[in-house]
Amino acid sequence: MLKNYVSKKAIIHETVRLEGNNLVLGKSEIGEGTYIGFNTIIGYPSKRSFSSLGVMPEDLSVLDELSSGAKISSACLIRSGSVIYEDVVIGKRLVTGHNVLIREGSRIGENCLIGTGSMLDGSVSIGNNVKIQSGVYLPHGTVVGENVFIGPYACITNDRYPASGRLTPVVIGNGCVIGANSTLISGVHIGDNSVVAAGSVVTKDVSPNTVVLGVPARAYMTREEYEIRKKRYERNNP
Amino acid sequence: MLKNYVSKKAIIHETVRLEGNNLVLGKSEIGEGTYIGFNTIIGYPSKRSFSSLGVMPEDLSVLDELSSGAKISSACLIRSGSVIYEDVVIGKRLVTGHNVLIREGSRIGENCLIGTGSMLDGSVSIGNNVKIQSGVYLPHGTVVGENVFIGPYACITNDRYPASGRLTPVVIGNGCVIGANSTLISGVHIGDNSVVAAGSVVTKDVSPNTVVLGVPARAYMTREEYEIRKKRYERNNP
Amino acid sequence: MLKNYVSKKAIIHETVRLEGNNLVLGKSEIGEGTYIGFNTIIGYPSKRSFSSLGVMPEDLSVLDELSSGAKISSACLIRSGSVIYEDVVIGKRLVTGHNVLIREGSRIGENCLIGTGSMLDGSVSIGNNVKIQSGVYLPHGTVVGENVFIGPYACITNDRYPASGRLTPVVIGNGCVIGANSTLISGVHIGDNSVVAAGSVVTKDVSPNTVVLGVPARAYMTREEYEIRKKRYERNNP
Repeated sequence: MLKNYVSKKAIIHETVRLEGNNLVLGKSEIGEGTYIGFNTIIGYPSKRSFSSLGVMPEDLSVLDELSSGAKISSACLIRSGSVIYEDVVIGKRLVTGHNVLIREGSRIGENCLIGTGSMLDGSVSIGNNVKIQSGVYLPHGTVVGENVFIGPYACITNDRYPASGRLTPVVIGNGCVIGANSTLISGVHIGDNSVVAAGSVVTKDVSPNTVVLGVPARAYMTREEYEIRKKRYERNNP
Repeated sequence: MLKNYVSKKAIIHETVRLEGNNLVLGKSEIGEGTYIGFNTIIGYPSKRSFSSLGVMPEDLSVLDELSSGAKISSACLIRSGSVIYEDVVIGKRLVTGHNVLIREGSRIGENCLIGTGSMLDGSVSIGNNVKIQSGVYLPHGTVVGENVFIGPYACITNDRYPASGRLTPVVIGNGCVIGANSTLISGVHIGDNSVVAAGSVVTKDVSPNTVVLGVPARAYMTREEYEIRKKRYERNNP
Repeated sequence: MLKNYVSKKAIIHETVRLEGNNLVLGKSEIGEGTYIGFNTIIGYPSKRSFSSLGVMPEDLSVLDELSSGAKISSACLIRSGSVIYEDVVIGKRLVTGHNVLIREGSRIGENCLIGTGSMLDGSVSIGNNVKIQSGVYLPHGTVVGENVFIGPYACITNDRYPASGRLTPVVIGNGCVIGANSTLISGVHIGDNSVVAAGSVVTKDVSPNTVVLGVPARAYMTREEYEIRKKRYERNNP
């Protein structure tokens, strides 16, 4: 195994595997059977922690001292190149792609998936059973409910008049589907079980059980109609 | 040179260079004159291979055992941070940017380019002479013909009603141009020599030799007209 | 500290910190108090330098010999996984996210920020006090003025009829705001203090002090009106 740096303060279950070139900093906790890919960093100190020092950390032992650690539950698979900051709590069975970023303060439920290159770029809250595809951007403050699907390159924002002094995060309800390469404008609430079609730009709140589409996104059909079409589509499976 | 892990089963031409911190797993084959950048992984086992084990691999020797390897032809340049899974076959002279992902089962022809951060996120088929710019997303099943150009952040999808139980991949014909930040909805066929303008959302099949544009994309001109405009544009080159 | 490769030609201030697994190539210069994250490469040789060799570099000492180095000023924070090519000049106090790409010939002013995964994918010019969020794509030749804000996944292009033999870069004036996931078509000039709304596709030049919106983007209000709305929005901050 290639060299790792693992904090003496870290609490790592004996079944945890580190693939190599890993940094595990601060009082990080990693649960049973979790696998940490190559070049992954766990418990990286936030900018605030860096700044508290007054000077740049002299070596990994100082970074280690600064870090309050991250908690990763059991049976997770964190693929190579990912960076998980301090003060992150991750539920059981998270599977990530490569080069995923999860910044300080984020909370992730159980049974989630986060695809390659996706970014939780601040303190983000994710419920259970959420599937986030590749390249998704979730800024500071974003709230995602349970059983949500977010397509690749969906881009969520948190400032309606950038660069202002106010952040108004997006809230995505339970059971939602957020289409690929869609853009959700700061502050919009996506009601439970609603669907945003791929490529849409959502500028206003979306009522529950509603499929929206276009630029700007407008109501197109109900979730019930979507489910009927989905079943028809699935039946055509050759 | 920084340390590498290279499988004893790997067949690596004596002229191959590994920049450092590389993993080469399983019976990978790397051809004459190919250059593998820093922190790159070749022959990474798929999720299925992982699962077959029942437990997480204990160290790199187990990963190595699991991997069926990747085949990379001669004269390729794979830049740093890239991850190439097992059961991938890559033709001669591929040049990649950094942090490229190529997942299991993908097939790439000769003389291709894949830009930084682009993802072949499943089994993807790419013909010869294809230029894929940076940040492009190609999901499982996508088929790309020959002599295709795909602009940065083009986002291809493969499920029309996510998250359904059916995947209907996109097929991109020979000679196509797919514009930057465009979105191609699951199942659409882009006819040979057609052009999708940047920022478009393609919801229906596109006939051959057609330029489409907008949200949703509609026919705008012929490829012949596009070529006339292109030549005029090139002549204005100061 | 994990191992680094640092060129003997590099001029590195004694207060510079290298987090580990770093490559610093050629006559790179790194100023006082600058911090270089894990797995970061400084001074990577361009394709042209590679080609000049005729064969692939045999080891890091050859890469080092090829590289003309990068200049990074004082008090910068370059986070892990970033790649900075040779012939790049970076002003004081740049802060980057992770996995940032800055290619050869780029020039970056003082007090800038470049978010995770953003790419300066060629020779790009950035003024002072520019905040580039995550996942932004800036191709060869792009010019960005001072005090500019660019939202996540904004995608700039440089070829109006790809793949042509002519590049016409985008020019973004001073004080502009470029919204998240917007697409700027090759050759457009965004006038000083103008705003491109999130998700827009800009196909024509934008006059100064103008807010544009939609696909294709059209004038929607003045920058003055935007600032009035912004102040109202900020006042509603709970």
